[in-house]
Amino acid sequence: MDLLNDQQIEEKLATLNGWKRNDLEGQAGILKAFPTHNFLAGLGFVVRIAVLAEKANHHPDIVLTYPKVSVRLSTHCSGGLTHKDFDLAAQIDTLSL
Amino acid sequence: MDLLNDQQIEEKLATLNGWKRNDLEGQAGILKAFPTHNFLAGLGFVVRIAVLAEKANHHPDIVLTYPKVSVRLSTHCSGGLTHKDFDLAAQIDTLSL
Repeated sequence: MDLLNDQQIEEKLATLNGWKRNDLEGQAGILKAFPTHNFLAGLGFVVRIAVLAEKANHHPDIVLTYPKVSVRLSTHCSGGLTHKDFDLAAQIDTLSL
Repeated sequence: MDLLNDQQIEEKLATLNGWKRNDLEGQAGILKAFPTHNFLAGLGFVVRIAVLAEKANHHPDIVLTYPKVSVRLSTHCSGGLTHKDFDLAAQIDTLSL
């Protein structure tokens, strides 16, 4: 899976809503925090994200806290951001909270 | 809810299996990572933890990644560790992965 360069990442980010560049240990990623009304609503959102992730065979880091859910996407096996991350981010954005 | 002091925390940790002290931004907490066979097994574990947490009205930070689930407990409203954290940790340890 081809890594995206910085310019491609910026262009892709501009097509999304609320996602931000988030590098971790030198590996490019994108992050978004979703406010949730309560813990169980957050849990339901995590489940819906996980189902999309499993279908895409692409697994984000998902943090369930109260009162938010944070999602970080990166293609670990490629060492940075690829189209798979932005495709899944766009799908996650279609979910209702 | 009374905060536990360092000695009480050490004594409580000694009664648990695999939990470690984990302070964040000056607030005492405990953390444990649970290895999971695959992403959906991790999701199921997150759901079971969340049900226990909701019953206890005490909400940990839960991180779902592949191939592990990490749980961090702290009593945010009290600013550190209380009996609630250790009670929930003991309950989580009764769950099967």
